[in-house]
Amino acid sequence: MNPPAKKIVFSGVRPTGPAHLGNYVGAFRSWLRLQDEYRCFYSIVSWHALSSEYASSRTIGGNIFEMAVDLLSLGIDPGKCVLFVQSDVPEHAELHLILSMFIPLPWLERVPTFKEMQQELADKELNTYGFLGYPVLQTADIILYKAEVVPVGEDQEAHLELAREVTRRFNRFVAPVFPEPQTLLTEVPRLAGTDGRKMSKSFGNAVYLKDPPEVIREKIATMVTDTRRKRRSDPGDPDDCPAFTLHRAFVAREVREELARGCRTAGIGCLECKRAAIDALLGFLGPYQEKRRAFEKDPGSVREILAEGGRRAREEAKRTMAEVRDRLGL
Amino acid sequence: MNPPAKKIVFSGVRPTGPAHLGNYVGAFRSWLRLQDEYRCFYSIVSWHALSSEYASSRTIGGNIFEMAVDLLSLGIDPGKCVLFVQSDVPEHAELHLILSMFIPLPWLERVPTFKEMQQELADKELNTYGFLGYPVLQTADIILYKAEVVPVGEDQEAHLELAREVTRRFNRFVAPVFPEPQTLLTEVPRLAGTDGRKMSKSFGNAVYLKDPPEVIREKIATMVTDTRRKRRSDPGDPDDCPAFTLHRAFVAREVREELARGCRTAGIGCLECKRAAIDALLGFLGPYQEKRRAFEKDPGSVREILAEGGRRAREEAKRTMAEVRDRLGL
Repeated sequence: MNPPAKKIVFSGVRPTGPAHLGNYVGAFRSWLRLQDEYRCFYSIVSWHALSSEYASSRTIGGNIFEMAVDLLSLGIDPGKCVLFVQSDVPEHAELHLILSMFIPLPWLERVPTFKEMQQELADKELNTYGFLGYPVLQTADIILYKAEVVPVGEDQEAHLELAREVTRRFNRFVAPVFPEPQTLLTEVPRLAGTDGRKMSKSFGNAVYLKDPPEVIREKIATMVTDTRRKRRSDPGDPDDCPAFTLHRAFVAREVREELARGCRTAGIGCLECKRAAIDALLGFLGPYQEKRRAFEKDPGSVREILAEGGRRAREEAKRTMAEVRDRLGL
Repeated sequence: MNPPAKKIVFSGVRPTGPAHLGNYVGAFRSWLRLQDEYRCFYSIVSWHALSSEYASSRTIGGNIFEMAVDLLSLGIDPGKCVLFVQSDVPEHAELHLILSMFIPLPWLERVPTFKEMQQELADKELNTYGFLGYPVLQTADIILYKAEVVPVGEDQEAHLELAREVTRRFNRFVAPVFPEPQTLLTEVPRLAGTDGRKMSKSFGNAVYLKDPPEVIREKIATMVTDTRRKRRSDPGDPDDCPAFTLHRAFVAREVREELARGCRTAGIGCLECKRAAIDALLGFLGPYQEKRRAFEKDPGSVREILAEGGRRAREEAKRTMAEVRDRLGL
C-alpha cells in the first residue's frame, strides 16, 4: 500500500525589500514547518510586486534575489519544497486572464484589504486595474498547482474565501478541474515595529533579518514600550507593550513570564527586559546571517536554485493549463 | 537603398459565431486591402470571446474554426499576413497582466463601450473583472507586435486612444519599448440587419456570409424598408431605408443612384430595388462560398494554417516580451 500522497501547499511572498521580523513571524516560520509535512510550492511573487512598484520596477529584480537569499538562509530547502519566482512561470498570467473573465466585479470591490492596502501604501497610486485584480492573481497562483492547503493569517482569510468562490465558479461553468483550497490558519502573533505600529517596511519601523547585530541592538533598545512606564519605578503592562510583542515571538515562555512579572511589579526596567529579546533574536539570527554571507558570496548558486525551482513549478503549471485549455475547448 | 520597411498592422476579431455581412463591411474588407500594403497580424481573439462566452466556453473552439474558414474563404492570405489564434500565443496574457499594473481604474470605467456592450449583450452577465479589462487585453494584443497602425471604425476610436495612453504610461514608467499605435480610420458604412437595427448576431437580424443563396434571398426580400412606402405608389427616402444600407455597401454607384431615384419617385418598388442588392451579394459571395466548401472538406489544412500563424506570431511576441522583461528587470 502506498502512503497517502502529501497534500499540496501554495504560499507566496512579495519581493519588495529585505525580509523583516514581521515577515518571518507572519509567514516564513510556518513555511519552514510546512516544508517537512507537505508538498510545498513557495513563490516569490514578482508580478504582485509590480502592482505596487510599477513606477520603479527596476528595484524588483534585486529584491527577488534578496528575498531568495533570505528564505534560503532561514532554512527553506529546495530539496524539500519548490522555491520559484512567479514571473518565471508565465502560466500564472494565462490562468489569471482566464479567471478574470469569470469574476464579477463586486466580488473584488468588496475585498476589505483592497481599501486597507491602498491606505497602508498611500504614497503610491494603487487605484489600478491590476491592484483591484490582486485576489484574481492570488487565486491563479494557488490553483495553478491544485494546492489544497494555503497557510494564511486571519487578515488574509477573506482573500482565500474569494479564491474558493472563484474556484467553485470556474468548476461549475467549465469543469471540476480544481480542488477548493483550504485555509490552514496559522497563529500570527502581532509584531510591533520600533514605533509601536504594526511592523512594516513602508512604515520605516522594521527590524530586518539581515540587520547587523549592532543595528538590531540599537533598534530594539530605542523601541517604544508601554507608555505607563514613564519612570523606572512605574509598573507596566506587557500586554500593552509594543516591545513585548518581540518576546512573545522569540523569547522562551518561562523567561517571558518572569519578565512580564518584573514589568508589572516594576521589578525590572525596560532595557533589562529588552535585553532578553535582543539575546533571543541574535541567537536566532546568528546561523541565518552566517548562511546569508555564504549565499551572498555565491549568487550563482541562488540563481541556479531559483531557475531549477522555476522549471519544476512550470512542469506542474503546464500540466494544469493543458487540462484547463482542453476543458475550455481552446 | 532598402525600401522602407512595411508598417505593422494589428487587428482582431472575436470568434463568437459565423461572420455576417456587418463583420465583412466593418472589418474584413479593410483587412483584405491592408494585407497587400502592410505587415499584418490578424488575430482570432479567443480570450476576448471568453469574456462574453465564459458560461458556454465549449462553443468557442468551433467558432474559432468557423471564423478561420470565413477569413480564408474571403481571401485573407497566410502568404501575405499572419493569421493566428490569440490563445495560441500566451504572451498576450503575460503582457496583459503586466499592463494591468499600470492602468488607473478610472481609465477603464470611463470607456463608453463598456456600458454599451453590457447593454447590447444584456442576456449575459458582463459585469466582470475581465470584461472591464477588455481594453487592457486589446492594448496588449496591439503593442505585443509593436503595431503602428490599427484599422478601426469610429466607434472603436476611444479604445485606441486608451491603448495610446497605456502605451505612453508604460514607456514613461519603464522604457520606451512600444510605438504608439495610430488609428487608420476606416470608413464603415452602417449596415442594418433585417429588422432595421444595426446588424448583430445577438439581435438575430444578421445575414451570414455562409447563408445559402435561398436564405439570403429570403432574408433580404423580407427585410424592413423605409416605412414611408406603405404602398407601391408612395415615394420613399433611401437615406432612411435599412435595406438600402446594403446597396451602399455592395451595389455599384451608378446602379445605386438610379435605384435611389426610382425610390424617391416611386418609379420602382422595394422588391425590385432589393433584387439589385441580392444580385450584388450573391455575385460577391459566390467565389467565397466555393472556397468555403473546399476548406470545409479539408479542415486539417485550416488547422495547419492557424498553427503556422501561431508559430510566426509567437516568434514576434517572444522577442517583444524578452525586451519587456529585460526593461522591467524581471
